[in-house]
Order: sequence, then structure tokens, then C-alpha cells
Amino acid sequence: MALLLGFSLAEARVHNHTWEITYQHKSLDCYNKLSIAINGMTPGPVLIAMEGDTIIVNVINHLFMENVAIHWHGIRQIGTPWMDGTDGVSQCATMPGDTSTYQFVVDKVTVPAGKSEPFVYDGGDHSIVLSDWYHSSSYEHATDLTYLPYVWIGEPQSLLINGRGKYNCTNLDTSVCNTTNPECVPYSLIAVPGKTYRLRIASLTSLSALSFQIEGHNMTVVEADENYVEPFVTKNLYVYSGEIYSVLVTANQDSRNYWMSTNVVGRKPATPTGLAIFNYYPNHFHKLPPTTPPPGPAWNDTGARINQSLAIKARQGFIQSPPSTSDKVILLLNTQNTIQGRTRDTPYLIALKKNWTDVFNQTPSPESYDIYNIPRNTNSTSSTSIYRLEFNSTVDVILQNANTMNVNDSETHPWHLHGHDFWILGYGDGKFNMSGDVKYNLDNPVMKNTVPLHPYGWTALRFRADNPGIWLCHCHIEAHFLLGMPVMFESGSEMVAEPPQQNMGCGRTKSLIKP
Amino acid sequence: MALLLGFSLAEARVHNHTWEITYQHKSLDCYNKLSIAINGMTPGPVLIAMEGDTIIVNVINHLFMENVAIHWHGIRQIGTPWMDGTDGVSQCATMPGDTSTYQFVVDKVTVPAGKSEPFVYDGGDHSIVLSDWYHSSSYEHATDLTYLPYVWIGEPQSLLINGRGKYNCTNLDTSVCNTTNPECVPYSLIAVPGKTYRLRIASLTSLSALSFQIEGHNMTVVEADENYVEPFVTKNLYVYSGEIYSVLVTANQDSRNYWMSTNVVGRKPATPTGLAIFNYYPNHFHKLPPTTPPPGPAWNDTGARINQSLAIKARQGFIQSPPSTSDKVILLLNTQNTIQGRTRDTPYLIALKKNWTDVFNQTPSPESYDIYNIPRNTNSTSSTSIYRLEFNSTVDVILQNANTMNVNDSETHPWHLHGHDFWILGYGDGKFNMSGDVKYNLDNPVMKNTVPLHPYGWTALRFRADNPGIWLCHCHIEAHFLLGMPVMFESGSEMVAEPPQQNMGCGRTKSLIKP
Repeated sequence: MALLLGFSLAEARVHNHTWEITYQHKSLDCYNKLSIAINGMTPGPVLIAMEGDTIIVNVINHLFMENVAIHWHGIRQIGTPWMDGTDGVSQCATMPGDTSTYQFVVDKVTVPAGKSEPFVYDGGDHSIVLSDWYHSSSYEHATDLTYLPYVWIGEPQSLLINGRGKYNCTNLDTSVCNTTNPECVPYSLIAVPGKTYRLRIASLTSLSALSFQIEGHNMTVVEADENYVEPFVTKNLYVYSGEIYSVLVTANQDSRNYWMSTNVVGRKPATPTGLAIFNYYPNHFHKLPPTTPPPGPAWNDTGARINQSLAIKARQGFIQSPPSTSDKVILLLNTQNTIQGRTRDTPYLIALKKNWTDVFNQTPSPESYDIYNIPRNTNSTSSTSIYRLEFNSTVDVILQNANTMNVNDSETHPWHLHGHDFWILGYGDGKFNMSGDVKYNLDNPVMKNTVPLHPYGWTALRFRADNPGIWLCHCHIEAHFLLGMPVMFESGSEMVAEPPQQNMGCGRTKSLIKP
Repeated sequence: MALLLGFSLAEARVHNHTWEITYQHKSLDCYNKLSIAINGMTPGPVLIAMEGDTIIVNVINHLFMENVAIHWHGIRQIGTPWMDGTDGVSQCATMPGDTSTYQFVVDKVTVPAGKSEPFVYDGGDHSIVLSDWYHSSSYEHATDLTYLPYVWIGEPQSLLINGRGKYNCTNLDTSVCNTTNPECVPYSLIAVPGKTYRLRIASLTSLSALSFQIEGHNMTVVEADENYVEPFVTKNLYVYSGEIYSVLVTANQDSRNYWMSTNVVGRKPATPTGLAIFNYYPNHFHKLPPTTPPPGPAWNDTGARINQSLAIKARQGFIQSPPSTSDKVILLLNTQNTIQGRTRDTPYLIALKKNWTDVFNQTPSPESYDIYNIPRNTNSTSSTSIYRLEFNSTVDVILQNANTMNVNDSETHPWHLHGHDFWILGYGDGKFNMSGDVKYNLDNPVMKNTVPLHPYGWTALRFRADNPGIWLCHCHIEAHFLLGMPVMFESGSEMVAEPPQQNMGCGRTKSLIKP
């Protein structure tokens, strides 16, 4: 696997970890809630590794009746499709009492020793993980969303910065909600005046699109989904679920503490701003800033969000040029309709590998739609088909937005592709022009693995189907994923090794377990 | 299988059912809560069958990540140990998307055509299912109980009669709790004046011991765990978790509606009385009785509870005499201590069948303890051993109570045995006298499958190990089961057929699945 990445194993290290999965009571936003934890922690532990290193994680499922699978978001799993952690696609989820071992090479993240990055920072390198937090359980969400008629899950109760938020505990018993609980003390980033810090800002939200900002400070965006971008300065960063950005921020203001804040955009917010502290040493890191937290940008300023999407270009000197043409164009119409779901039990990649052709639909998936001739809201059928792509072919994916089930309503969808980065060739408003005179950016398109599709707009992506396997491509909003927005891209699966025993044991794959 | 029961297949019927397991929002006590449902129903559907009939139930697991197993409480599974539904003992739980088919012969319940019962009733035959209801989830309970130090789950929020209760919704939003929700209208039993009704009163509680009574009416107890008992009259019936009684009640009072009520005994109650309506036709069945519901007996009147236990004897003419001596005596000390748990993943019966001797402890389990010489609270070790009993041997089990982790505190434990009925040879106070001069009732001991062990007392049971398999014997309180009170009795497992494919797929049994 290391050879695929083009550097020698001699430099690379192996990181061994054991992750024990349990339920724990957590009060991340001061409200006590049962949460799934890794080694007792929610959010889970941080893995620190350099490009080319090997990660080995033994995941032990200590839950009583629930199965577990772990996806390593942003890791392309080049040559290791069985390690992608996609329940029902690459594996059966791990059963209670069982252990699964995930082993893969880190293809990005921290540059290896001897390589340097095209920007400097003399402070620290900090992860800023943004998430939205519900007090209801994922069981309630899954139940509500699959009711007929379905029940919407509503807006999250809190926004968390590095797992810390603050719910309004008024009128709640302190055993349930207690704002003095140390678990919900705001995260504080300690900065030395004059120094420049790198923040790796990741959104793990299940629903919300966010804006992130640091009161009184500019941020310079230098990286998106671990690809260098042409630096640009902004007061606020829009982050969609599944995206990761690196920004540089310099502690160049008066010595006091400042708010770091995040707020919902793209949907009418019903969730308070998430807060953390940008602490100027030697002020006490728990001291709240003297100011009112900045409100963040207007939630419905779609234009500003599109402008930021357009501003993100590959960095000069680091441009990986895309193929100038594609072999295939797939249009994915993002809309809503009512269909009846079904239960799936056999992972696709194992079925394909075993030639169990009845597990999935053999009819080729549609490669293009005439969106001019179909009424909206009719392109919804329950499908088990896979987009089968010729290995090493170049594929364009046109994400086309439309209205939801409500009139004059169109949502932002953050699309995430497994196993590959794609080039973002362009964004546009309204219906994509399939006749071919669309101007793509082939000069300096950024590569990412997650991209927003803006309301009533389109987003054009290009990627090389050069990683053997079956790979999910889906809206990263959990409810949308559950409601039917994942598709699967297959290519080169004939080159894939036999599935590991640990990946099997559900549905038809039960019969593949060897003594 | 039918031959084992001694009547011909010609008379028996086959009942085919499909049970779809899903999550549903339910408001059984007016408080909206996510519940697991069978075919949309909580409590699940009623299966009506006669002795000798065959039940076939296809259980389809539509949950997203949770596995499911179903135990058929009170069915002895004579010759069908693989159908007992005990996750980790007889089977692997059924995974999401999978179907398991349970097939077994009904060995008791309704008498077959042509047989008559030793009592008469000219009204109807009604099930009265009593349960305690928590607003927290079983995940929260399992998490709290397995914390170190452990967190007690507390008393239930409501008591339900046939799945209906009434929580105090004051100060709660009506979307969460609404006493006018039709789901929580009290159950009403419509009675014609002068007629006699048979009530089959079953306790499905997870924690609570209960008393059940009908305002102003006597009840005649005629059956216990589907065995006829010498009739006796009582104003209130004590019912322990896992027990089933038939009582006769005659509508011989003034024409109005009366309360049926259930209340907690044996623990200091923190749960309101559960209420239903005994409706005298033609009064409206929803009309509440004009009276204050009777409070039920004092929760701490242990003497009254012991007296009722002693009153339950096999019915003359229906006595199945126990063997006069036993081949083995097993003493189970009921106490509490702190130990570290472990995760188990391979069902015992399959492991035994496959001679995987490392899955369980080969050391014989202790057959007796000198309870005079051991300090209390020390008999707690984590064990994977099985009590191996010679096939067809007669075994005595002495349940010996002790104090809990608190001084001067001893709880009631309802013990339930799978695969067999046992004779209840006696109850006693204090330490059981192992020297042998205990007076057992060998004349007319009742047979049951669930029996209370009273505080600081002992209960002596005898059974014939005549059903090949591995059978759980456990305190029926869910928390106690989880905390380590199950033991397993094996006998004749060499006669057991090969496990069905559907029972395998977890732990080591993964390797046993055939294509």
C-alpha cells in the first residue's frame, strides 16, 4: 500500500490503537445524555499520524445489542477498500463482543518529515471540531424519518466546539442539566500574542451548515479537505458537514479574550450560537470575553456562501490538473419525494466480489437525465443499483439542486465522495446546461472530497475512477443519507482482494465465514 | 415433537405468524417514548393457541443497528432447545435485515379440544398483562448498571395494565406528555352482571413485585404458571415478575364501574398505582369509578406475601408427584458484590455442541456452599461455567437469600427456570438447614417456572433434568439478570440436534454458517 503512495516504508511509522466502544453519560452541552464513546471519550480520541504512516485500530464493540462500523472520513483507502467502514457496502457492522481491525495508510493529513508546507505558522496546530448536538437519540431520528408520513427531526439543541456547548438549563433539574458541569466548560485556545496559529476546522454536523468566526480576527484559508488552496482572507468561514479547512490566524489584537463562535446558516436557525474562547496569554483561559458574542453572518445570505465557494481554488504550484474531458457524465438530481424503503442486509462489495448478482440491480444506473423534460419530484425510486465505472475512466458528476417537497424551498446539500478526491469544476445557478457550453474551471480547480450544492444551483465535479472498490457518494446530512441520498460508484472491483473474514457475517455473507 | 407431548398431530393446528420488529413512538402512560414494537404494537400481538398446536413465527428485524432475540416465556421448548430465544445461550441474536423463524409446540396454555378444566366460568377469558414502565431507555439502564461504580436505575415511572398507564403530565409540554392521548386511556374489562370471568394475570415487570386487586371483589386463584392449583380466595394477588396466574372473578356487586389496580410491593414504592376499569355492563366502559382507587396492601407486609406463597398448592386430582429424593443439591446464594464484567459472544449450547471447550469454564460449578462458614457478600466471581446435570436426574435448587450491599436489606428475587417446570418444595426463613431435617412438601407441591425468594428466606425447588439443552435459570428482575444472576443448567445436550443455521453468526459460531 505504501508503494502506491510513492514514498518508502522506511520513513513511515505504524500506529497501533485499541478503541473500546461503550455507552457513557455525557453532558457536552451541560445536558446529560447517553452518548456512544470511544475509550470513554465523546468526541473520540485524536489520532496523530503523518502521510505514509500506517494506522491499525482494533475496534472492540462493548455495546449490548448494537453493531458498529467506523468510517475514516477523508482517508481515501487507496488499495484498501475493505477498510472504508461502510456498513452494507464494504462490510458487515461489528457485532457486540466482536473486534474488527482497521488497517490503512494515511494518504494525507500531516506532511511527512522532510517535506514543507507552503505557509508558515509559529504558534500551534489545533483541531477545531464543530458539531451539532441533539438531545434525542439516533434511534428516535431514524424512527421518525422512516415513519410514513415521516416526522422531521427538527433543529439541533446545541452547537459544540470541540465537544463543548451550553444549553439553557433554566427550569431543568440540575441532575439533568447543569451549566456548572465541568464537562461543558467552553473550549479555550491559548494564544501567545503575536504568534500565528493553524486551526484545522472540521464540521461533523449531522444537519447544520455553519459559519465559524473569531471575534475581531481575520482568518487566512490555506487548505481545504487537506488540499492546499490559494490563500484568501475572510472574517468568517462557511463550513459544511464533512468539510475540513485549515486557516491561519494571528493573535494581533489587544490583549484580552475573544469569542470563537459558530452559528447555523442555510436553514432558519433555532439553535443558539456555539461558543469557545480565543485566549490571549496571560489572560486566564477561562475568563469570558467582555463582549457580546458576534452574531455571525445572516443565515439566509446565500450569495455570500456561493462567493466563498467560488473563492476556493487550488494553490499555484500545487495544482493537479484535471483531465480536460470526461468519459461519462452522471447527473444527480437532488430533490424529495415519498417512497417506501426496504431493508438491506448484504454488503455490495462482497456481493459483487462473489458474483451474487441478485443482491443488487443489474440494470445500469441512468447516466443522464433530461432535466428539462421531467417534472420535479418524480425522480425518486428505490434502487439497489450501482454506478459501474470503467477503471481509470474520468467521470463527471453534476449535482443538480431542485426544490424540496415544499414550494420555493431548496436546501444546501454537502456531497461527500469516498475513496477519491474530485476536482470542483464549477458552480452555477439554476438548471445545468447539458448542451455543453458550460465554462468549467480547468486551470486551478481545487480538489476536495466534500462540496456544497447550493440552493437551486448546480455543482460540477470530475474524478478519476482509479481506486478499485465500491464507494459511497452521498449528501453528508445524516437525515438525507438515511432518506435515500447515497449512491455508489464501482470501478475495478475485479482487482480487489478477497474480503477479510471480519467484514462478513451478515445477510448472505454469513456463508463466507471460514472456521 | 408432538409425540413427546402424547397426543396426536391430527388434532393439532399450525399457526403461522410474521412479526416485524420496529421502533415506534408510544405514549403508553401518556408520556411519549420510543418503544420497540411487534407489527406496530407495544405490548405485542397475542398468540392464541391450544396445547399441542405448533407455532411458527418469522421474526423480521427492521431495526437499524440492533440485534433481536425473542424468548417464549413459559413454553418449555421440549425437544426444541434451539427455539428458546436466549441470546448467547441457544442462539446469536438476529441481525438487522435478517429473519429468524421460531417453531415450537405449545406444551401448555389452553386445553386441547375434548379436555375440560376443573373450574368453570361463563363470562370471558381475558389476559391482564402487568408491567412497569421507564421513560429512560434500556441503553441507559444497561449503561448505568455496568458503570463502575454502578448507578441504580431507580423505580419505574408508571405501572401499566394491558399497556395502559397514566403519568402525571403537569408542567410537561403536551407534545411530550398528554393525558388526553387515546393511547393511554385505561383498559376496561366489560363484565355482564352475574357472570364469572377468568383473568390470566401475568407480570412482565422489569423490576417491581406487584399486588393486583379488583375493588370490592374477591378473586379465586385456580392456576399458577399454567398449572392447576387448589383454589383459594383472596382480595389481592401478589404477582412477581415472570409469573402468570389464572383467577376467577364474578361480577356480583352493585352495578357500577370498579377499579382494577396494581401497586408496588416489596420495595418502597415511588410509582403511582396502575389503574384499569372493571366495567359492569351497561355502564359506559370509559366511565371512571366514583371511588378513590384502593391503595392496595402495604408494600412492606412480607408476612402476607409469604402466606400467599404458602397457600399455593397443586390441585387435588392434578398432582404430579415429585421424586421423593434428589440426585444433586445446588445452593444458589442470592447476594450482591462488586465484580468486573466481561463480554461474551459465543452461545453456550453451540459451543458445547461443537466441543469448543474454551468458550466456557470446564471446572464444575459448586454444588453446595457451606453458607455457615462464608461471610456474606464474598460469593461473587465472574464465571462462565455451566451446571452440568445428568440427564433425567433429579435436582434440587436451594435459593438462599441474604443481604444486599446495604445492611439490613434483603430483596425479593423472582427466579425463573427455562425448559422445565419445577416443584416448589418449600419456603423458609433464614438460613436453609443443609443437614437434612427440613420438612419438604412432597404431597401436593405446585409446579411452576417462576417462584419468589422472599427477603432473608430460602425457597427449595426440585426438577427433573429431562429436557436436553442448556437452560437459563435466573432472577427475572432485568437489572439483576444483567448484573450477574443467571446460571445455566445443561443436561442431555449430546442428544440435541445440530443448531439451525439461523442461530449462528456471532463470535466463534460465524464459522459454522454454510453457503
